[in-house]
Amino acid sequence: MQVDGFSKLSKQAKINWLLQTFFNNTAEARRVLEQYWHKNAELQELHDSFIENTLTNFYLPYAVAPNFLINNKIYAIPMVIEESSVVAAVAKAAKFWSNKGGFKTEVIDAEKLGHIHFTYTGKTTELIQFFRQNRHKILQSVAGMQANMQKRGGGIKDINLIDKTTAMPDYYQIEFRFDTADAMGANFINSVLEEASETLQSLAQKQLTEKLEILMSILSNYTPDCRVKASVSCPVDDLQTADLSGKVYARKFVQAIHIAEVEPYRAVTHNKGIMNGIDAVVIATGNDYRAVEANAHAYASKNGQYTSLSHAEIKNGMFHYWLEIPLTLGTVGGITGIHPLVRFSLQLLQNPSAKDLMQIVAAAGLAQNFAAVNSLITDGIQKGHMKMHLNNLLNFLKATPEERQRAEKYFVSKKVSFKALKKLLGRS
Amino acid sequence: MQVDGFSKLSKQAKINWLLQTFFNNTAEARRVLEQYWHKNAELQELHDSFIENTLTNFYLPYAVAPNFLINNKIYAIPMVIEESSVVAAVAKAAKFWSNKGGFKTEVIDAEKLGHIHFTYTGKTTELIQFFRQNRHKILQSVAGMQANMQKRGGGIKDINLIDKTTAMPDYYQIEFRFDTADAMGANFINSVLEEASETLQSLAQKQLTEKLEILMSILSNYTPDCRVKASVSCPVDDLQTADLSGKVYARKFVQAIHIAEVEPYRAVTHNKGIMNGIDAVVIATGNDYRAVEANAHAYASKNGQYTSLSHAEIKNGMFHYWLEIPLTLGTVGGITGIHPLVRFSLQLLQNPSAKDLMQIVAAAGLAQNFAAVNSLITDGIQKGHMKMHLNNLLNFLKATPEERQRAEKYFVSKKVSFKALKKLLGRS
Repeated sequence: MQVDGFSKLSKQAKINWLLQTFFNNTAEARRVLEQYWHKNAELQELHDSFIENTLTNFYLPYAVAPNFLINNKIYAIPMVIEESSVVAAVAKAAKFWSNKGGFKTEVIDAEKLGHIHFTYTGKTTELIQFFRQNRHKILQSVAGMQANMQKRGGGIKDINLIDKTTAMPDYYQIEFRFDTADAMGANFINSVLEEASETLQSLAQKQLTEKLEILMSILSNYTPDCRVKASVSCPVDDLQTADLSGKVYARKFVQAIHIAEVEPYRAVTHNKGIMNGIDAVVIATGNDYRAVEANAHAYASKNGQYTSLSHAEIKNGMFHYWLEIPLTLGTVGGITGIHPLVRFSLQLLQNPSAKDLMQIVAAAGLAQNFAAVNSLITDGIQKGHMKMHLNNLLNFLKATPEERQRAEKYFVSKKVSFKALKKLLGRS
Repeated sequence: MQVDGFSKLSKQAKINWLLQTFFNNTAEARRVLEQYWHKNAELQELHDSFIENTLTNFYLPYAVAPNFLINNKIYAIPMVIEESSVVAAVAKAAKFWSNKGGFKTEVIDAEKLGHIHFTYTGKTTELIQFFRQNRHKILQSVAGMQANMQKRGGGIKDINLIDKTTAMPDYYQIEFRFDTADAMGANFINSVLEEASETLQSLAQKQLTEKLEILMSILSNYTPDCRVKASVSCPVDDLQTADLSGKVYARKFVQAIHIAEVEPYRAVTHNKGIMNGIDAVVIATGNDYRAVEANAHAYASKNGQYTSLSHAEIKNGMFHYWLEIPLTLGTVGGITGIHPLVRFSLQLLQNPSAKDLMQIVAAAGLAQNFAAVNSLITDGIQKGHMKMHLNNLLNFLKATPEERQRAEKYFVSKKVSFKALKKLLGRS
């Protein structure tokens, strides 16, 4: 079942091999793959070209959460996610806060990092001297690569030599700090670093007494200084529910957040929920959710114990609640200009700059967290989740009002499943 | 631009509102959304029903990486990802190791966790006594809910009272340990916890002298004891490349891994790459990548400093390289049985159990990491990335062999972009 030259086969030949090898060549398996092809061959080829060995399109639902009031401007936020309840929860939270002044957001900083990692077996003092003398030459060697980025307001902000010999013998870094304007900037940063590392290598060979060996040159996805804050606040009394006074509600909410601050087992799930809201917008806008995830969770562990990304307090009768998170996003480059639905998403968000998008995404994260904590301290998470799940299934089955009533009554005390629902309604 | 009752509108009415409000009702915007609808209305309704406020389908490329030899069995692994190079890199690494004995994998444990978080204002000793006396009753109250899970070999394994009062005044947990068999188990765990918390509450009211207040009941996405290991090894000499001896290559590789172990700025990017491989399989098999991400990165920070999930060493002339990562995956429940391409993925993987899938996913993560570190210590990351990017664009433009040659020559020294390529080849 090994195969040679698979990547060079046509899409059809790849599928033929796969079906023959793993599916006894069944027509049904072929139908499943082919039914998701787009009928417009050119559009399909565009989607095929994003990655390698593409066979078909994987559908993720594309939805919107309206009524987001962010810094006094209203948005409908596009979300791509497979998990039920997330969009409903985010939309509900957005509406709730839109009547209380909405979300306030600010970009704290937008600095990105990259490193040349290398070893030097000579003296540290000699290396420091060498770096001082050649700093300008290293920068000059990448000046041409910066031209375009500088036109857009970005570029290299600083470079520094960092002594890491206490972490590993002979280990140093040259750390680059970047502003990448509206681009996520990964290709730009990596290209600059690789070019600079060649300059560094050739200067070292001429000027240093001992061996300097480049180990690797690469951006860091950890950007604690490319960070955004989103917050909401209201009088405690405005949080009153049917069952709880505003005071009790606010106290329970703050306690729930505090638990996520002190207990890693809770913090991970708490932040996972925040990322439900964040990643859905990240994907809809053509950004890289793996980069966003790694960054956020590393930031959550920066003080030595993994902790909550959101915080809350009660002060002078006011409830304050906020999220602070590093985010590296782009609104140009990558697939942002190519994927038609990504372009649609950016238009829907009124063509945001990267910094605008950071703020919108952070608001979506805080909205999701609010909805989750709200459920947890009131009805519990399952009630809403199961209600939503049942509703989605009833929609799919085009249930009549009578069937809907029957199902809702039946599942009050029973576990919702597609199988049980179909049986109840006599569908095949 | 606020809207009431949006979720209750039909899909068409939702789209009408959105286009009117944010797109001046342009036909072009409508076309973009509608062109992605599936022509089979029933299949489209299925995809719409996964979440709320669905407007259309977001295409992510569905690809395969063949030639994975895992515990002496060959797999072609389905991957869903938008980032170019990942599938090519993983496939290349899989092939490389398939000629060297392949991947060895093992599930270390598969235990999941959930907690009832509560406060008790009385004495700890009284609470301990109360828990001992009522442990059985709490378990009994959820016995019915366990029946199905027990048939499949899972269920509650243990429950314990945990004193967290040093972290927060009056704070305790009842920690549940679960085996959820082939299900990811989120709904099962949350339902059990919420039921048990009601039992706890009512027992406390009758038997305890002071107030016990439930704050929340929820699974933990952090599962350090639901963990898998994937490894490869070979004689150091087998790692020889055109430019480097096996010895030098292995030394540089181990150094690169060591840097990711000691330097968080590197570790985050290093692990981000691992997650490129992992998440692509997680999505293709209908699992929740936010849960997988949060778990993995929290595990990477468990010793107080964020560090590499993969490790390498040279021992007696042998190169050993491995990844250890917590993973909670399901092969039943959720959308696994409903999304046609998820079903296809699971069939392609020969209907794995959840534990089988953990091992396959871990192998994909290690393969991606190998490819990334290999590039970094040899040619750098950009060369391969840009070559792949150019190739994908040339495929999309159906370039002739002559155009291909021209483009490859032109972009040796220039930044690859779709715009520059189209200009070079005189395409509109």
